[in-house]
Amino acid sequence: MLAYLNGQFVPRATASIPVEDRGFIFGDGVYEVWRVVAGRLFENERHLARLESGLRELRIPAPEIVDRDAIESVARRLLADSGLIHGEATFYVEITRGVAPRTHQFPPAGTPPTVFAMANRFTPPDAVRARGASCITTPDIRWARCDIKTIQLLPNILAKQAAAERDAIDALMIRDGVVTESSHANIMAVIDGVVRTHPTDHRILAGVTRAVVLEIASELGIPVREEPFAEADIARADELFLVGTTTDVMPIVRVNDVVIAGGTPGVIAKRLHAELRARLDAKPAAERATSRAMASS
Amino acid sequence: MLAYLNGQFVPRATASIPVEDRGFIFGDGVYEVWRVVAGRLFENERHLARLESGLRELRIPAPEIVDRDAIESVARRLLADSGLIHGEATFYVEITRGVAPRTHQFPPAGTPPTVFAMANRFTPPDAVRARGASCITTPDIRWARCDIKTIQLLPNILAKQAAAERDAIDALMIRDGVVTESSHANIMAVIDGVVRTHPTDHRILAGVTRAVVLEIASELGIPVREEPFAEADIARADELFLVGTTTDVMPIVRVNDVVIAGGTPGVIAKRLHAELRARLDAKPAAERATSRAMASS
Repeated sequence: MLAYLNGQFVPRATASIPVEDRGFIFGDGVYEVWRVVAGRLFENERHLARLESGLRELRIPAPEIVDRDAIESVARRLLADSGLIHGEATFYVEITRGVAPRTHQFPPAGTPPTVFAMANRFTPPDAVRARGASCITTPDIRWARCDIKTIQLLPNILAKQAAAERDAIDALMIRDGVVTESSHANIMAVIDGVVRTHPTDHRILAGVTRAVVLEIASELGIPVREEPFAEADIARADELFLVGTTTDVMPIVRVNDVVIAGGTPGVIAKRLHAELRARLDAKPAAERATSRAMASS
Repeated sequence: MLAYLNGQFVPRATASIPVEDRGFIFGDGVYEVWRVVAGRLFENERHLARLESGLRELRIPAPEIVDRDAIESVARRLLADSGLIHGEATFYVEITRGVAPRTHQFPPAGTPPTVFAMANRFTPPDAVRARGASCITTPDIRWARCDIKTIQLLPNILAKQAAAERDAIDALMIRDGVVTESSHANIMAVIDGVVRTHPTDHRILAGVTRAVVLEIASELGIPVREEPFAEADIARADELFLVGTTTDVMPIVRVNDVVIAGGTPGVIAKRLHAELRARLDAKPAAERATSRAMASS
């Protein structure tokens, strides 16, 4: 199996980075995870835009891979190599500030960023989705720039681990009394008939799936308010669900020991998920045109 | 030049870790930096205790190197190899949660932690110390567990870089109106004749040099209060100084555009630094006994 590392395709099992990479020494880097269906990077433009924005915020020069054609070409080769051109997969790209002697401030201009990419097989958690998942709550102890998708993921790890130890799928993070995000997904609630979710500020990552789901809700005429909801609102929510690249729309039917929404996945979550799934499976316009042309020829 | 990596001494220039190391993927690890004088790890017991405590907090199993004899033996070999047995150096150890397929929760029990160590030449910044240094202030945007010495250092990097761009030695971080820490040192102020510094809670790292300097102050009869001081107190402080493993006691004579304490290093900072320097240079009791025996024989 291959990985991509700094312009080269190398065997993943032996792919390695120098110990003085700032990713390893400082967690000084950003990453992206794409959902891949039938070889296509879902919502590639949005993921690329977020990656570019993260690099800009951290002032890491954007390497060549940060380009639509370049990234699709790298993904295609890794997916093909792993037999993942058909079915479901994820595609991961990490970019760090490169290799330099350890000192907090940025390395000299011209230090090339490190670029690593890998593709992995993926199976959507549809069995859990059908019955609804459990979550725990945990204090949101992250830093003040959760809007940047950095590899500073230790608080997320600790939250996810705490959830796993209580047989829960994820942890809902609470800051100043409001629900912000889970360890790796955004959170939405249906309260008084309105889909509520934390606005995109420094306290959450602006999820790509979050944006797509809000778009879908709007198209379906489901009212949406990007306004935080309180931890205290969880118990009275009509529905609660995670939205994320690998969770899609995941209904939550239990939080800590409290049963939510009668303990079964709600109708709004199901409608949003069905439409998201349709988009995941949709062929792009160009491919559709080609199929039509082939079918009619 | 050698580095230590997972039980082996390897050429540092080619020492590398697998791309799926959780240090590189998640920033999932801790580190320590020791000051080394004439081949001795200064305050080794305190550094080791902090390393053990960090591993325990993050539930990373302590590898064999976390032991007084083991760590001194690794340090000795690296120092000797680099010609650093005499004079000043630093010794760096990083321990991550090891290599595993990327998933937020902890890897399976038995996954060996990654251990990396290196020694570097060090020159104390005595010229800056003599005239006093400049700092900027910056919001403390770190997470809520600054008491653990993790490699989640991006906020520290951004603070230090901001300082460097303004020709300042470091950035004083401000949270809720009080001064917490700099990018990699603790901060003390002399206000109304009392040395004030943030108490050791989740908002700061309990610095080894901080503990030593407080011990020295107590021995010298200088009053100390471990109580935060406000950003607004900076301008009226009689003295302000950083304390850290590589800063020792560093007088600050300017913060942003405000001159502190008449613009010259203060007497308390000087006394504390002189005594700290004496401790750095002191031979341990056993070595002193040997020298005496040799001199008198």
